[in-house]
Amino acid sequence: MAKNLSTREENYSQWYNDLVVRADLAENSAVRGCMVIKPYGYAIWEKMQRALDDMFKKTGHVNAYFPLFIPKSFFSREADHVEGFAKECAVVTHYRLKNAPDGSGVVVDEEAKLEEELIIRPTSETIIWDTYKNWIQSYRDLPLLINQWANVVRWEMRTRLFLRTAEFLWQEGHTAHASREEAVEESEKILGIYTEFAENWMAMPVIQGIKSPNERFAGAVETYCVEALMQDGKALQAGTSHFLGQNFAKAFDVKFLSKENKLEYVWATSWGVSTRLIGALIMAHSDDHGLVLPPKLAPIQVVIVPIYKKEEELAQISGVAESIKDALEAKGISVRYDNRDTFKPGWKFSEYEFKGVPVRLAIGPRDLQNGTVEVARRDTLEKDVLQIADIENKIEHLLEQIQRNLYQKALTFREDNTHIVDTWEDFTETLETKGGFILAHWDGTSETEEAIKEKTKATIRAIPLNKQFSGEGKCIYSGKPSDQRVYFARAY
Amino acid sequence: MAKNLSTREENYSQWYNDLVVRADLAENSAVRGCMVIKPYGYAIWEKMQRALDDMFKKTGHVNAYFPLFIPKSFFSREADHVEGFAKECAVVTHYRLKNAPDGSGVVVDEEAKLEEELIIRPTSETIIWDTYKNWIQSYRDLPLLINQWANVVRWEMRTRLFLRTAEFLWQEGHTAHASREEAVEESEKILGIYTEFAENWMAMPVIQGIKSPNERFAGAVETYCVEALMQDGKALQAGTSHFLGQNFAKAFDVKFLSKENKLEYVWATSWGVSTRLIGALIMAHSDDHGLVLPPKLAPIQVVIVPIYKKEEELAQISGVAESIKDALEAKGISVRYDNRDTFKPGWKFSEYEFKGVPVRLAIGPRDLQNGTVEVARRDTLEKDVLQIADIENKIEHLLEQIQRNLYQKALTFREDNTHIVDTWEDFTETLETKGGFILAHWDGTSETEEAIKEKTKATIRAIPLNKQFSGEGKCIYSGKPSDQRVYFARAY
Repeated sequence: MAKNLSTREENYSQWYNDLVVRADLAENSAVRGCMVIKPYGYAIWEKMQRALDDMFKKTGHVNAYFPLFIPKSFFSREADHVEGFAKECAVVTHYRLKNAPDGSGVVVDEEAKLEEELIIRPTSETIIWDTYKNWIQSYRDLPLLINQWANVVRWEMRTRLFLRTAEFLWQEGHTAHASREEAVEESEKILGIYTEFAENWMAMPVIQGIKSPNERFAGAVETYCVEALMQDGKALQAGTSHFLGQNFAKAFDVKFLSKENKLEYVWATSWGVSTRLIGALIMAHSDDHGLVLPPKLAPIQVVIVPIYKKEEELAQISGVAESIKDALEAKGISVRYDNRDTFKPGWKFSEYEFKGVPVRLAIGPRDLQNGTVEVARRDTLEKDVLQIADIENKIEHLLEQIQRNLYQKALTFREDNTHIVDTWEDFTETLETKGGFILAHWDGTSETEEAIKEKTKATIRAIPLNKQFSGEGKCIYSGKPSDQRVYFARAY
Repeated sequence: MAKNLSTREENYSQWYNDLVVRADLAENSAVRGCMVIKPYGYAIWEKMQRALDDMFKKTGHVNAYFPLFIPKSFFSREADHVEGFAKECAVVTHYRLKNAPDGSGVVVDEEAKLEEELIIRPTSETIIWDTYKNWIQSYRDLPLLINQWANVVRWEMRTRLFLRTAEFLWQEGHTAHASREEAVEESEKILGIYTEFAENWMAMPVIQGIKSPNERFAGAVETYCVEALMQDGKALQAGTSHFLGQNFAKAFDVKFLSKENKLEYVWATSWGVSTRLIGALIMAHSDDHGLVLPPKLAPIQVVIVPIYKKEEELAQISGVAESIKDALEAKGISVRYDNRDTFKPGWKFSEYEFKGVPVRLAIGPRDLQNGTVEVARRDTLEKDVLQIADIENKIEHLLEQIQRNLYQKALTFREDNTHIVDTWEDFTETLETKGGFILAHWDGTSETEEAIKEKTKATIRAIPLNKQFSGEGKCIYSGKPSDQRVYFARAY
């Protein structure tokens, strides 16, 4: 246990909150439900952004920027969308303040009332499709493959740092296509990118699937998703990709002249991941000693701590440390050499352990004599003494090993916590005693899904893709016939 | 003249607007005063961001993210700041919509009224210093060198794409220091970064200076600025860096325990540049044929256009074009090979000329025979025929040459349009007939500055740093003594 951190066993929720705040990732702000993302947390987001942005661009997407504000009337255009999004949101009604007559500060100037209220975007389909109307005339203008990095606001009542905040940062892709097939292919391609990102960068295995109608994005025809399992046995939605059909094209009257010279509605997708992924990253790997970060997303991958008593020793150690730092940086590894004299080595050890730095190197006078360095890895907490010769290749290799190990550990955890059940009793008992993903038969109706949610708080996280887990069976709740198992879990 | 673009001579303002829209940089949105930044325009912003972000990080700054919303009362804390910023702004008063009773859509739910209104940040000093209060206890917590990339909103009445919009994107640095000297040094260091960026990346020469009290940032002790000259002889503020003294520390009660164990107020700076720079970039270099972009910020640096009649020719040309593309990309040069058969070469030539691509390569059947390629540079519109051998080094060199040439041309323009005047008659006549920067003596009073502004619309753009243009003289307006010339101009 570090810094009086609650253990996961004692209180998982408290452990998470303490960790986020004490590891300097984020904190609550003076504004209800809005967080401040601190530099260490933001550095993780920047690494996530860079990796995702590179993948989007490699697949032909470009970035753009659309307004923060959406006219209120835009939401009413798509019937499902307005139900899903235009409720709990921040509404701008005025555009001016004035000095209070009593000198007590500033007050809203009632004369500066907007004719139509503006909503802070909770998601941008409406304003973007209103814009696309002017951009699309012919099949030659398609596809449009556009992404936006932006802040969005949803007025959540109960908020938790990263996982659910009133304002959050995300990317939202909005693409336009000439055919249904191409749009579906795009939705699935993005699901592939999200999967690759979760597994190869976050070291977090995910299941891929589609959402049941109840859990579908408001306005979508199909919602694809990736879902991960957290250490407390709850699921977390890590990304969604929506096939929107022609719903928004119809709502905003976006038509194009096809190759066959026919006027048709455009096909659409939208997809996004958010700063919520930082919450997932924390909960997937961290332990009672603090954060554990996968090397590919760690702001600092290697920290070097000098251990010395006399100033001459520090000078010698610094020589070695700086040359190791240079050699590692030449390999693209980010390194901090912490030679501050205001903190003791023991304090630094626990600080970097708490902050999840994947590899710690310590160099003392004896190491100087022996040409060695002490290496500690954060994931297993194992220590080793290595010869300095060729250290950059050894560390590069070690970082890859840690990345793989974290993935493997999370995958084993998920496998151990995925249960196949066939009866209602087994279902409820598994939920109560073990948690995790439960693969069970479902009759395909919303009524059953809602009844199960009401009784157990478990929801259908995903209907597996490609007929995985297909086969005849009976719905655990209604007993009606079912031809495929689906993933149930309690979720964040 | 391209695409029926107005010429600069005819109507500079119209030329600018047409260019922004027709070159696919940005357009007005459905929301008053807010723009859509289109992919080509946003790609320029991304290049600007990357260059600036690298410079900030190299000088020890880190990024973070603070809330979009600021409680109304925060603005009243700093007396000057509230006057400057808390007036024309977007005010959030409610957090919920509901279905209209008459079924006509959604309306504001009057029951969901916020206790305290929230302002969409016009700048973030207040919320950030309210946060810093909890982050700073001792000198060991200083300096804090934090930057934020964000959207901000100022409810401007008259807007112009990029130059003045209700919502815009920017970076805002907010630093905290233990001493006045260190904070002043930081403000000046950032001014150096802005200068380097404007001159080396944007190829846009700037003058450095400080603002007169009238033009100072609301809440600052000193505002440093860089100012550039546009082709119509008007000045444009390209970046500001503010030394805030202890004003915000006092307003938000942020104190630290010094090394000498004394409780002192923290010293502050803030600084920013915005998407306005894209407007400056356009106006600094572009011509009546369209955009002219400096190679370092051009989304596409080189375009290759095949010229062919038969399919076999295209196949052969493509072989050569792809190998040139690979060789250029290996040097980090961004290349588009436009082999679309839906557009003719002539259309492509004028398209890329209009979009300011610095270098165009054309390859036809005769080039194949001769081992040559036709090279056209956008800045001078000159064409040349080059041997393909070693083409990547020739093009790399050419791009550097274009970058330098644009800077040199803009510098010559500024020098030709900087006038030293000594009398009021000369001042007003120069303003009317020539425009540009006018170096003139000023008595140092706000009254004189305001009178000059009222009579001529010219403002003091900068008081030169380091006693440049110092020397005894008489104020052009009041005739009172002055010991330094200052830069006057009409400005954007």
